[in-house]
Amino acid sequence: MLTEVMEKGRALTDEALERLLPAASLYPTSIHQAMRHSVFAGGKRLRPILCIEAARMIATRLPLGIEQLGAALEMLHTYSLIHDDLPALDNDDLRRGRPTCHKVFGDAIAILAGDALQTYAYEVLARVPCPADARVRIIEEIAHATGTREGMIGGQVMDLEAEHKPPDAQTLEYIHRSKTAALITASVVSGGIYAGASENDAAHLRCFGQKVGLAFQIADDILDVTQSSEQLGKTAGKDMVAEKATYPALYGLEESARKATELVNAGCAQLDPFGTRAETLKGLARFLVEREK
Amino acid sequence: MLTEVMEKGRALTDEALERLLPAASLYPTSIHQAMRHSVFAGGKRLRPILCIEAARMIATRLPLGIEQLGAALEMLHTYSLIHDDLPALDNDDLRRGRPTCHKVFGDAIAILAGDALQTYAYEVLARVPCPADARVRIIEEIAHATGTREGMIGGQVMDLEAEHKPPDAQTLEYIHRSKTAALITASVVSGGIYAGASENDAAHLRCFGQKVGLAFQIADDILDVTQSSEQLGKTAGKDMVAEKATYPALYGLEESARKATELVNAGCAQLDPFGTRAETLKGLARFLVEREK
Repeated sequence: MLTEVMEKGRALTDEALERLLPAASLYPTSIHQAMRHSVFAGGKRLRPILCIEAARMIATRLPLGIEQLGAALEMLHTYSLIHDDLPALDNDDLRRGRPTCHKVFGDAIAILAGDALQTYAYEVLARVPCPADARVRIIEEIAHATGTREGMIGGQVMDLEAEHKPPDAQTLEYIHRSKTAALITASVVSGGIYAGASENDAAHLRCFGQKVGLAFQIADDILDVTQSSEQLGKTAGKDMVAEKATYPALYGLEESARKATELVNAGCAQLDPFGTRAETLKGLARFLVEREK
Repeated sequence: MLTEVMEKGRALTDEALERLLPAASLYPTSIHQAMRHSVFAGGKRLRPILCIEAARMIATRLPLGIEQLGAALEMLHTYSLIHDDLPALDNDDLRRGRPTCHKVFGDAIAILAGDALQTYAYEVLARVPCPADARVRIIEEIAHATGTREGMIGGQVMDLEAEHKPPDAQTLEYIHRSKTAALITASVVSGGIYAGASENDAAHLRCFGQKVGLAFQIADDILDVTQSSEQLGKTAGKDMVAEKATYPALYGLEESARKATELVNAGCAQLDPFGTRAETLKGLARFLVEREK
């Protein structure tokens, strides 16, 4: 059941990305090839799937055009991966088992491909087929979640600055909340807004996203320690080498896993008011922390 | 008169930027300092001024809050400069007489500061005080103008790829239209939309912007050849060293200047239907090609 939901969500997102992104043959071809190289590198499309399922829960059916919002979220996630992988930042050669964007296209085109995916996400968001006032709320929500003030870029900055320093609990939580949980939260909240969620419903989705998003990053930290590069499709054990601030480094593996489970439970409790309609989102949340890559 | 308009537009934009950008003391401070370093580096604020004056022409008064739109345009322009200056791209140490962002803060923070200025521009645009349907049109207009399909990033890609190759006329015009004219066009068109321009009015502003924007970049090429680094506040003669595609390289200085003047004349003619209300925009257009830095 959950596998089917994820498979359908992934296919819907991939179709939308294929349709929305400029063709690889379009001039100037190098940038469009670079954008597509990273977007179609076998991502799990977790953010779009969460967005789609949050919208379905609120609307009690699949709202028309929701996959365009999902595609925009995936473009933003991919832009952040391309820039994170650059030699000036994390200097990663592998991502999902394939060479990273700058390894194939060079640093200059990789920087511009990341830029272009961000730009293009907002062009898509400006056109998603929901009322204009919902569209501007969605754009504001997503821009804030990917920015510097408790958003994705803020988390990335602190992640870089916390390297080679003993991690402290407060900084670590800030990094994980900002770098990862913020965009996951924006994915479910924007899906809800797209589907016409009330303020109260959106608040429940927000609390769910914050807790589950943090649990997701803790699970990611754990996988970096316990899985091989082959299993992950990216260089494993890099966090430890770079002395990155991680939950296992600070709390140990067992306590980290306990925290992740606790967060998912608390996140899922936020969806109790939606009754059985929340089953899929809750199932996805559990999957996020129990996955093996 | 024109000097006063420009001075007031610049002050209005600077105040808005000061108010809207996160404080340099806000956590994480390095990224906010880097953003402000580049935004407050003595820019002329030409795009905001064009936006403000296009809005004033359409509304026949200064529309409330227009400076927020101007500030967002300047954030996008600044993000493009920060990334263009990176070692992987143009590798420039000086910009407006000051060390470039990556020279002060390092490549990683410079990449993220550029990213953040783009993100933050859209957060501001999602909130500008005009009707939501005008806001989404403005966002779409600006995102398209800064993207890969005849937009700023597309121009930058072709600019990089045209280095060390003899420039051909068609590529050169594509680069200049995309890299520079597109955002200048979006500045006047979005100012018009903000002020409630009709489709027909917006079309005239678009033609004006396209021609004047191209003239502006030709003038920039000419200044790179004729002015010293001290006069420009950035490394002069760099285009020639990098064998960049420029108008003087292809057509010579005199013919380039003639083309720029011709374009400005044709652009200004597009504003004739607005009568005397267009005087300021026309004056600004002439200033753009006659400036000395």
